[in-house]
Amino acid sequence: MKSMFTIEQLQQKISDEINKVDLVKEPANLYQPIKYTLDAGGKRIRPALVLAACNIFSKDIENAIPVALAFEVFHNFTLLHDDIMDNSPKRRNKETVHVKWNENIAILSGDAMMIKAYGFLNDLTANLLKEIFPVFNKTALEVCEGQQYDMDFETTENVSEKDYLKMIKLKTSVLIAASLKAGAISGGANEKDADLLYDFGLNIGLAFQLQDDLLDVYADTNVFGKQTGNDIITGKKTFLLINAMERADDETLKELKNLISDQKIDKQEKVAKVTSIYNSLGIKELTENKISQLHNKAINSLNSLSVENGKKEVLLSFADLIMKRKK
Amino acid sequence: MKSMFTIEQLQQKISDEINKVDLVKEPANLYQPIKYTLDAGGKRIRPALVLAACNIFSKDIENAIPVALAFEVFHNFTLLHDDIMDNSPKRRNKETVHVKWNENIAILSGDAMMIKAYGFLNDLTANLLKEIFPVFNKTALEVCEGQQYDMDFETTENVSEKDYLKMIKLKTSVLIAASLKAGAISGGANEKDADLLYDFGLNIGLAFQLQDDLLDVYADTNVFGKQTGNDIITGKKTFLLINAMERADDETLKELKNLISDQKIDKQEKVAKVTSIYNSLGIKELTENKISQLHNKAINSLNSLSVENGKKEVLLSFADLIMKRKK
Repeated sequence: MKSMFTIEQLQQKISDEINKVDLVKEPANLYQPIKYTLDAGGKRIRPALVLAACNIFSKDIENAIPVALAFEVFHNFTLLHDDIMDNSPKRRNKETVHVKWNENIAILSGDAMMIKAYGFLNDLTANLLKEIFPVFNKTALEVCEGQQYDMDFETTENVSEKDYLKMIKLKTSVLIAASLKAGAISGGANEKDADLLYDFGLNIGLAFQLQDDLLDVYADTNVFGKQTGNDIITGKKTFLLINAMERADDETLKELKNLISDQKIDKQEKVAKVTSIYNSLGIKELTENKISQLHNKAINSLNSLSVENGKKEVLLSFADLIMKRKK
Repeated sequence: MKSMFTIEQLQQKISDEINKVDLVKEPANLYQPIKYTLDAGGKRIRPALVLAACNIFSKDIENAIPVALAFEVFHNFTLLHDDIMDNSPKRRNKETVHVKWNENIAILSGDAMMIKAYGFLNDLTANLLKEIFPVFNKTALEVCEGQQYDMDFETTENVSEKDYLKMIKLKTSVLIAASLKAGAISGGANEKDADLLYDFGLNIGLAFQLQDDLLDVYADTNVFGKQTGNDIITGKKTFLLINAMERADDETLKELKNLISDQKIDKQEKVAKVTSIYNSLGIKELTENKISQLHNKAINSLNSLSVENGKKEVLLSFADLIMKRKK
């Protein structure tokens, strides 16, 4: 038996396990939307991290599979409900559940999906359940807090960098962090190592989200085609916009605010003008520096783990992947 | 220390415990709706049953308090989300959350409320958690199934008595049944006794719902004022209507269907005419007989419990209360 799996192998393993979940059940209007959502795929990053973290401490990763499924199904539940709240028509190139069925069915099948997520934890031993349940539970609540802050920020005039980082930490990072921590616990890690992996996940998660903000404006257009600048067009308060507003002088700030709130301006012109302000304020470098800082903090946590270096390679390459992605 | 508590004492205990739950937290738009919902009160029947069932097997009911809170908060979560789906403007004489705040906040605070419900189970010992978690989880999913069937039935032409009983079992009874079972487990009951209490709850829950259907039409108007016949006015497929449709001859069936679908007829006239059809078909007696049957089955389960009769009194009087209520 091979002792260390690659992320790709773990992603495949999870996809196989998800395919085994029996969702051909009645009432069909409750279960079909769950199956539809899970069948749509996605990168299975969180469950792969659960298994990878377990694998650092144990050759046998079977214990961690229910945990991985719980995190993946919970994540997909949040997408289902977020899509209602954000009024999103598409997800992974398919109609969202509230569009394909209706909003009531999307609410209720989302609820059922969250319960299904918890349900996987049933397969754990009493002691493992007692350790992992509070990690899962606390994180689930934090993800809701993050989504609420995100919605609140849409109508908040001044969002500080600190507020923003707190929001993305709750909305995105804690679930990645908890996936790693719960995986580590399943593999028998001690508390210190489990917490180090949590910190690794927290910082990588933040770096990932800031990279998202950055790529929306500064993606390599030669490689990936025309950039969208979608966040600029919709006036989303990203790390870039928040920092530009903090750094701008009065005149530039006024111009920036006018641009962002202008619904009539040509979209490409809007993107070009806001990007030009970002450039003049050094927002690209500032964001890249912040991402580097977060990446370094993440790596430091990995370095402090009480295991041989070879076992850290999967997570190191995962961190590299996050840093190097261009889209 | 008094060894047996009354239902009223247990309801009070639960209200005190709910008041202790810290919900003055940020983001306020997430937590205030939860506090608002729980502060609105309600009869606290499910958590009182958790504690009452525990109390049959143990003088000490402290173990069961987290379980009672989990069931009560879960029940209130279902009301919050059901009110969105049913487009209900009021609940317990207060505006519903989706009206007082908005629909997105109602969806998300409902999600958080379900997570809070699970969270109380954190306080259980590893062994108790391992026993109670699957009971809670299975039941939570069944409640969603019941709500989906209820929504499906709105647009289903022919709902049979069997289908209807299955729906109300899932939507209402299983949560009452599981409250009793989980309470019994918390008190150290053996599996057989816990299952007998589950069956007691299942049948009492069905009797309760059929009583609801009956009282909508046949409530004692002298005592409680004018009856509403609200189910008749809205054309809800109740136990009474479903059985009337099954029993009616072709001509009466046609008349009944026309009456139910008639949106223009005077409401009082509609109620009077449908009630008159119910009377001619003996629907009141049929429903009363069914309720009696269910009550008897429930009492038989109680009689089979392996504990002295004195300890069953609280649940016997609870069952009596259900049977004798007039509204």
